[in-house]
Amino acid sequence: MEFYPVAIEKLIEEFAKLPGIGYKTAQRLTLHVLNLPKEEVSEFAEALVKARGTIKYCSICGNYTDTDPCSICSNPNRENSIICVVEEPKDIMAVEKVRDFNGTYHVLHGTISPMAGRGPNDINLKQLVSRMKDNIKEIIVATNANVEGEATAMYISKILKPFDVKVTRIAHGLPMGGDLEYADEITLAKALEGRKEI
Amino acid sequence: MEFYPVAIEKLIEEFAKLPGIGYKTAQRLTLHVLNLPKEEVSEFAEALVKARGTIKYCSICGNYTDTDPCSICSNPNRENSIICVVEEPKDIMAVEKVRDFNGTYHVLHGTISPMAGRGPNDINLKQLVSRMKDNIKEIIVATNANVEGEATAMYISKILKPFDVKVTRIAHGLPMGGDLEYADEITLAKALEGRKEI
Repeated sequence: MEFYPVAIEKLIEEFAKLPGIGYKTAQRLTLHVLNLPKEEVSEFAEALVKARGTIKYCSICGNYTDTDPCSICSNPNRENSIICVVEEPKDIMAVEKVRDFNGTYHVLHGTISPMAGRGPNDINLKQLVSRMKDNIKEIIVATNANVEGEATAMYISKILKPFDVKVTRIAHGLPMGGDLEYADEITLAKALEGRKEI
Repeated sequence: MEFYPVAIEKLIEEFAKLPGIGYKTAQRLTLHVLNLPKEEVSEFAEALVKARGTIKYCSICGNYTDTDPCSICSNPNRENSIICVVEEPKDIMAVEKVRDFNGTYHVLHGTISPMAGRGPNDINLKQLVSRMKDNIKEIIVATNANVEGEATAMYISKILKPFDVKVTRIAHGLPMGGDLEYADEITLAKALEGRKEI
């Protein structure tokens, strides 16, 4: 395709590299950018470089942060004897939205996945173990409810056995508003297994 | 939402400003960018600024270009007595893909639309009229097949009446592979109206 000038083709290519963005969408985004005021485009470009440049990982929990430790780890009002272990920084946001959890977090940046060739050393586990010295009472493993997430949860519970710490897993079951009829067998089995007296 | 550092929030906001990109997608794109090597992010940022900075409109046809006149207008192998009038630069790409048209183009950058408050002076029409002095034989109006596109085509044919030029409109009818049963009435009416002897 050589109908666009090089600079436009280049920007289309860059947009098309982003996940979930194909050539047509990249083209649409590029033409949108060409119609923006120059200052807005510079601001966008600057935000890109700045976000990538200034962001580091919190040395305690592994979350993205601009200060070290991050705002959650350094907050004296949070109970730092309870750690919620999540796969990715965006999962922290999901839990924070519930406004029900006042502990701290630990970001694994991935899961153990033999299929994808990721072992325990490829995720942020060592740091979690080293946090055990700080008088931790409970570790809530909030990895995703899929094969990798479950395997990772099992592994964490195993390596934390030597420490005097309660390791819990978030509950699996029917989602709220969920219809029994449409629930898959595994979810339903988990829901039955996790039944509680009322 | 204050769970992300400022620089990340800013980038999410910038992505979310793009058309068709909501907060969730912007978040996904931002986290993707944070995991890229710094050089790739700089390259993306540079492509943004460069595309917006170096691109201008061709002084003849109004297409995006980095040289003036654009590569199509300055190509001696293209028949510059035939002009295909389109709404947007991306329409040129659509026509070029057919590899069947060897004339030149004219980009209106919009349509006449009283509903949206766009009159004849808001699109690139004056320049089209001024091109009439160059011994033009045919104007093919390839605006979209909707109300605004049709109205614009009508208007163009009217203002070009004083010149000795053939003004044609691309055909409307059943799309190839289209099923009569599923064609809407207006398309079918156009298809009947445009029937040809075989």
